[in-house]
Amino acid sequence: MLAELPRELKQKILRETARRLNRSSDLMMKANQKDLRIAKRMGLSSAMIDRLKLDSKRIGQMAKAIFDVAKLPDPIGQELKSWRRPNGLRISKVTVPLGVILIIYESRPNVTSECASLCFKSGNAVLLRGGREAFHSNQAIARIYREVLKRYRIPQASVSLVPVRDRRAIDELLRLEDLINLVIPRGGAGLIRRVVRRARMPVIKHYHGVCHVYIDREADLEMALNIAFNAKCQRPGVCNAMETLLVHRAVASQFLPPYAAMLRREGCEIRGDQATRRILPGIKKATEKDWRTEYLDRILSIRVVNHVDQAIEHIQNYGSAHTDSIVTRNKKTAEKFVAKVDSSSVMVNASTRFSDGNEYGFGAEIGISTDKVHARGPMGLEGLISYKYVVRGRGHIRT
Amino acid sequence: MLAELPRELKQKILRETARRLNRSSDLMMKANQKDLRIAKRMGLSSAMIDRLKLDSKRIGQMAKAIFDVAKLPDPIGQELKSWRRPNGLRISKVTVPLGVILIIYESRPNVTSECASLCFKSGNAVLLRGGREAFHSNQAIARIYREVLKRYRIPQASVSLVPVRDRRAIDELLRLEDLINLVIPRGGAGLIRRVVRRARMPVIKHYHGVCHVYIDREADLEMALNIAFNAKCQRPGVCNAMETLLVHRAVASQFLPPYAAMLRREGCEIRGDQATRRILPGIKKATEKDWRTEYLDRILSIRVVNHVDQAIEHIQNYGSAHTDSIVTRNKKTAEKFVAKVDSSSVMVNASTRFSDGNEYGFGAEIGISTDKVHARGPMGLEGLISYKYVVRGRGHIRT
Repeated sequence: MLAELPRELKQKILRETARRLNRSSDLMMKANQKDLRIAKRMGLSSAMIDRLKLDSKRIGQMAKAIFDVAKLPDPIGQELKSWRRPNGLRISKVTVPLGVILIIYESRPNVTSECASLCFKSGNAVLLRGGREAFHSNQAIARIYREVLKRYRIPQASVSLVPVRDRRAIDELLRLEDLINLVIPRGGAGLIRRVVRRARMPVIKHYHGVCHVYIDREADLEMALNIAFNAKCQRPGVCNAMETLLVHRAVASQFLPPYAAMLRREGCEIRGDQATRRILPGIKKATEKDWRTEYLDRILSIRVVNHVDQAIEHIQNYGSAHTDSIVTRNKKTAEKFVAKVDSSSVMVNASTRFSDGNEYGFGAEIGISTDKVHARGPMGLEGLISYKYVVRGRGHIRT
Repeated sequence: MLAELPRELKQKILRETARRLNRSSDLMMKANQKDLRIAKRMGLSSAMIDRLKLDSKRIGQMAKAIFDVAKLPDPIGQELKSWRRPNGLRISKVTVPLGVILIIYESRPNVTSECASLCFKSGNAVLLRGGREAFHSNQAIARIYREVLKRYRIPQASVSLVPVRDRRAIDELLRLEDLINLVIPRGGAGLIRRVVRRARMPVIKHYHGVCHVYIDREADLEMALNIAFNAKCQRPGVCNAMETLLVHRAVASQFLPPYAAMLRREGCEIRGDQATRRILPGIKKATEKDWRTEYLDRILSIRVVNHVDQAIEHIQNYGSAHTDSIVTRNKKTAEKFVAKVDSSSVMVNASTRFSDGNEYGFGAEIGISTDKVHARGPMGLEGLISYKYVVRGRGHIRT
């Protein structure tokens, strides 16, 4: 039923949801207050509490995001390809929704609204399992979606919040391969591992980013400073922030001291290998564990490498295939890096922070897939759909 | 390494494998003889034994199929899309291999060669787990691939046969989500269920086809007879053969008697609902179980329906979303069927038997996916690849 809703009706429903969200600021903030009180009682960090908080500005942004999704081209019923076979059969490949999508996430309540609007737009029913700490806020958001659906006689179950608070309930859901077509877990290692082990339906992981920037011997060092600074410091708590810097031996002693000074002004801790520590005395030693760690914080590990191949090897060994960037003026070196680094986004002379659905022009993003199957990297509406083949004949039989 | 092999080299290696396969007929038939002896001792049916048998004609066909794969366009390193963002960033979406693919299958030894050639062509390493009954034949085929790989200094592990014969070894493999990027199980319910429950990596199921043909009241009955006969009888043992016929009440008494006569000449058993049994007295009653069964045999269940919506509902309830066809002259009815039936292939006035990678013009087929994620329906080389985003800037940072 959801699969066949006309484009205009979906737009209308999304716009009305956005308006109602705006009008319900007070109710939403009231629900959010409950979550905030519990969060304080439970001693959540002030950073966590800040992420949790809904104010009228954030509610306005949430509504704006829904209007933006309403405006996107409808992804369903599109003919991706069509061709005629020598025998006259006409084949076309047409987009369809996946069906029912379960999204498991933590963090900010606005994710609830983003996922609901994108799934609705793509004709999918969605089961949302947000973090415990945002329970009442998520409920208030979902209620608004459901009220509008009800008005248009669309099954309210199309946007459902999984109300349970214990983990075993997720395990139950993960067994329902006939009812749920896709699970998207967004979050930490524990959650991802649990879902991967138990799910019987396809899973698209939105997992961690151990992202690298490699400063080549032929880098424009001014540009390198800007990119490496931006990749680490512009927003350290997100998955496309840099966690390890690799720098060519030939430019390390010229590059690292001014770079370290920039980081220190931002309160960013540096850990390094032996060569880095000779150039930047006093810093902590980076261990094997550091190379594999997504700090999501103002910490950076640095390694000096002898050539681009060593940088590539390091990324292959320790990276998470999320986003990796090279800074170089040498086109051949850049193309080698691009060919050999198999990450969802490979960049040349750009900050890793660009790895993002909005920055890529997808209009909206359900998250960043760290899987290679179905959807990889920033995942927009295209990641939420499938297709079917429509074959038209004139009495064709096979001989 | 496999990911970066130049197109020409891959073609050369595939052609050499095909030639060597042709030259090694004797060795291969000797290995096959071992399997056949064991199969006879174990009392396998003559149909099974026939499927298992390799003769010089079948070996020739196997070699021909490799030549065909060599000729296909290279799926790797293709730019699927490329665009420039308003800030000047240039983004392109480029195809890459998935990595390591595990294929679990039963039946004919030629599947071993088909899977090996398609995975090699798409830059993937493949782990092949064929049926026990074809063990020696599969070994002989894989050995030929590996000998050629060795000559070109390509890791022989790129084409590996899982040598184990017990099922727990598969379970071990299914836990290695860091080493295996995709599992494709092709086979019966038991195998599929086992894999889905245990695999931690993505699974693309190649499961069963409970395919339908619906004869509408506005069907050309001559065409309907041909299509329904072809869909059932041209090759009853394959997944795109029809298992249930649905016929509109208004044409049932005209259509069914001559159709039943055609089926009976082929030795095909008919089971039907009450209305069908009134028109075709003496046939067995079709039960709930029949509507859900993939016979893969000369058996057909028939149901009389009151209108196209009832046919659609039947397909939604009992079908396996593989391939379903409508025969009608009415365009509106056809389009309703096409819109509402969410199967990997939906056909109008054509036999379900066309649902096949070669028939769709994909050049080769790894099988027919019954999943909706990543690859749906006939799955060619496109189903074996992923992509990465390549982002090129000139010192771009995010603000």
